[in-house]
Amino acid sequence: MTSAYAQLEARFHKASVIGDSLSILHWDMATMMPDGSAESRAEQFAVLRGLHHQILAAPDLPDLLDAAGTEPLDAWERANLAEMRRDWIHTAALPADLVEAVTRAEAACEMVWREARAAADFAQVLPSLKALLALVREVGAVKAERLGVGLYDALLDQYEPGGRAAAIDPVFDHLEGFLPGFLAEVLEAQSYNPPPAPPPGPFPVECQRTLGLDMMTRLGFDFNRGRLDVSHHPFCGGHADDTRITTRYDETDFVSALMGVIHETGHALYEFGLPGGRWRHQPVGRARGMVMHESQSLLFEMQVARSRAFATFAAPAIRAAFDSDGPAWDAEALYRRGIKVEPGFIRVDADEVTYPAHVIIRYRLERALIEGRMELEDLPAAWNEGYGRLLGITPPNDRLGCLQDIHWYSGSWGYFPTYTLGAMTAAQVFDAARRAIPGMTDALSRGEVRPLLDWLRAEIHGKASSLSTTDLMVAATGRPLDPAVFAAHLRGRYLP
Amino acid sequence: MTSAYAQLEARFHKASVIGDSLSILHWDMATMMPDGSAESRAEQFAVLRGLHHQILAAPDLPDLLDAAGTEPLDAWERANLAEMRRDWIHTAALPADLVEAVTRAEAACEMVWREARAAADFAQVLPSLKALLALVREVGAVKAERLGVGLYDALLDQYEPGGRAAAIDPVFDHLEGFLPGFLAEVLEAQSYNPPPAPPPGPFPVECQRTLGLDMMTRLGFDFNRGRLDVSHHPFCGGHADDTRITTRYDETDFVSALMGVIHETGHALYEFGLPGGRWRHQPVGRARGMVMHESQSLLFEMQVARSRAFATFAAPAIRAAFDSDGPAWDAEALYRRGIKVEPGFIRVDADEVTYPAHVIIRYRLERALIEGRMELEDLPAAWNEGYGRLLGITPPNDRLGCLQDIHWYSGSWGYFPTYTLGAMTAAQVFDAARRAIPGMTDALSRGEVRPLLDWLRAEIHGKASSLSTTDLMVAATGRPLDPAVFAAHLRGRYLP
Repeated sequence: MTSAYAQLEARFHKASVIGDSLSILHWDMATMMPDGSAESRAEQFAVLRGLHHQILAAPDLPDLLDAAGTEPLDAWERANLAEMRRDWIHTAALPADLVEAVTRAEAACEMVWREARAAADFAQVLPSLKALLALVREVGAVKAERLGVGLYDALLDQYEPGGRAAAIDPVFDHLEGFLPGFLAEVLEAQSYNPPPAPPPGPFPVECQRTLGLDMMTRLGFDFNRGRLDVSHHPFCGGHADDTRITTRYDETDFVSALMGVIHETGHALYEFGLPGGRWRHQPVGRARGMVMHESQSLLFEMQVARSRAFATFAAPAIRAAFDSDGPAWDAEALYRRGIKVEPGFIRVDADEVTYPAHVIIRYRLERALIEGRMELEDLPAAWNEGYGRLLGITPPNDRLGCLQDIHWYSGSWGYFPTYTLGAMTAAQVFDAARRAIPGMTDALSRGEVRPLLDWLRAEIHGKASSLSTTDLMVAATGRPLDPAVFAAHLRGRYLP
Repeated sequence: MTSAYAQLEARFHKASVIGDSLSILHWDMATMMPDGSAESRAEQFAVLRGLHHQILAAPDLPDLLDAAGTEPLDAWERANLAEMRRDWIHTAALPADLVEAVTRAEAACEMVWREARAAADFAQVLPSLKALLALVREVGAVKAERLGVGLYDALLDQYEPGGRAAAIDPVFDHLEGFLPGFLAEVLEAQSYNPPPAPPPGPFPVECQRTLGLDMMTRLGFDFNRGRLDVSHHPFCGGHADDTRITTRYDETDFVSALMGVIHETGHALYEFGLPGGRWRHQPVGRARGMVMHESQSLLFEMQVARSRAFATFAAPAIRAAFDSDGPAWDAEALYRRGIKVEPGFIRVDADEVTYPAHVIIRYRLERALIEGRMELEDLPAAWNEGYGRLLGITPPNDRLGCLQDIHWYSGSWGYFPTYTLGAMTAAQVFDAARRAIPGMTDALSRGEVRPLLDWLRAEIHGKASSLSTTDLMVAATGRPLDPAVFAAHLRGRYLP
């Protein structure tokens, strides 16, 4: 007689393998697939997702979850069972007609949004967005009851398991108190000492690609289990045994692709470091959530690659890649251009100092909308007010304002906070690593990343989802997420 | 109440979409996948194939097939139902333990074969091959009973639906009577007038690729629904909405990759020309079988691309692709090198004249082995005897003899005749097209393939599996496969 828990492991294993197949097909769609095959690929997704869903929606699954809870399990098995239940809540606990309605509303709203954004006309997408938000709140209500949490937390939990607004609020309050004054100081200091001009370019794609591959190798990317390709929107795809990152190249600016490659490499290193063997296809063996995943990409992009130490190592390699010379290629010039601060309207173009403001504005707004404390009609005005207050700028239109991000219009409510929580987590984890590893900064200035990577594997990657995000942080850094560490990082880097 | 037939269409549609997903994942494995991901990809194949098999092995499927047979169906629906039953016989009618045993024996034998081939030692693989052959015969016996045909025909039917040894024998007898004398004549004529030496090279891969893409475009390949990439063994993969061909490049010889690309383009054009809409994911909407598929690739490679007319068009394009000049690049030189005849031991390196001998030898041997008229111990001697008799050469060892092809050692018994039947079909279809299309040869000498392609789509591609191979041939060419047409083609091309 197979235990309920063993039956669950077998089913989730199969679901995970189907998920891996879907990930490879997604990667192919973004990198290789000819345009005319989009419809047939969509049908492949629908069929494979349906087969995946059938496993989680099996009528006897809730009983198996309950029965497994009464069986003797060790700590990883218990954590695995908890993740299985979360999976079930987020994918199979909803009424089928609600799932269908929200899927349709997402597709419809996203389509209208593309036109509304081009026209900079929020009113155009308002009816579709209202319909979608109403359904998202319905979904949230079902999940909230199952999870025993509030409406916003139920949505946040989809992306950040265990994430709770009550924990985010004090962290973001601290940042919001700190950032406007800090930004003014940084801008003033920078005005006395502006970053040097970049080298003129152009920067041939082939040289950029070779440089990117070199940096990936240096950072520990395993090309026996992964690739680098080109796509319109850079991403880290595939799965832990076959992790495929992408970038896009701009021949007038090599930094953008390079930093993008390093960012996605951070995501990939997390995937490579997850436990193999028995846990490879179990929910507990997955990365902990979007906050921790983003922290690993930002740790390599923001903490490592934009540090003065790393610039010391990277500058000669970069100069050699483009076979160029001159003071614009010096390490200090590279470093100072990499930490230039400039308030702007667009989140994805923002620097490390102003980025959190973009996120805090979205977080406050999406919570108020989800919790019914605000009407969608008031979104553009409230958006612009936030930008004025936190960044001192006012978007001239909604294309540069509340229409810029796809998230809300495609149904991703509760996602935004993970970006800045990830950045703060990265700062705190990097700070702990530096304290734990003697000579780490010197090592980075020689391009030696291995001691840091080994520490991350032991403290973060290898633990997968066996602990909550907070417990992972406490184990690795000695305390829960502490906004003071991020603030100290910013002060250390941006003030003279 | 949905009819039994409609239920079957829905199920086979889903199976086909899973099959398409598997095809893309196969392509990825051969072209893009990093080596270290092989194990996880094998698991994806196993899970998706299992899901595919579940659909065909559903316990109520035989009853649905029977019930649908009593419902009013039009001609395509009736043909579809017949193909569904064939699918069921070939994939789900076998006992599960037999399927498992043969799958295991195939994998084991193939592994030993790789070593035996390297060591040129047939004795090494003999025990594994005996075990595999015994299981293949068991499989054949089950299918033979279901299909109401003989043992060999049951295996042949897996690759060539409706193919029967009784129809092959007279065709191959005719060839076997004709070829040895013809080959002697050709070799003598060629000795008086040997083909001119090829240009010296090297031929850069990038130029070869550009040339291949140009030729594909010229032949009608739809890059909006397909790609060209590189793999170790060239193939045509993907599916009708996303057809992906591959080649490999040799910088010392551009003809090999070019002819390979044209061959695979022929396969792809068949896929592109299959009916869309309702039949796209139904068994009746698939290509007719391996004979007809190979006929389409060989029609473009052997009938079109190796013709004097096409050389007239291609020679300037090829010369331009390599930015070269001189008499070695002339159309007549290109043509004459392309039809050089030389008996050899290796099937895949054989020219158009000697190729059938390789196939006839294998066909006779595999039939005798399957039908129990010969023992495996006698294979190497019988193989070498065949080469002496048909080609006048004797393999010096089994690596250049009966160990050269993977087919038998990986369980593909009954496949070989499709190669030469495909070549003969190509000659007969091309001959009919030339009679039907005024000025076709002149058009080919200007590189105009569209009239031929339109004719093929109307006569062959668009009919998919709605007719048997023989009925397709009768409809398109006026009679069943006639070895005299192939013989006339060879005489016309190879004798002065």
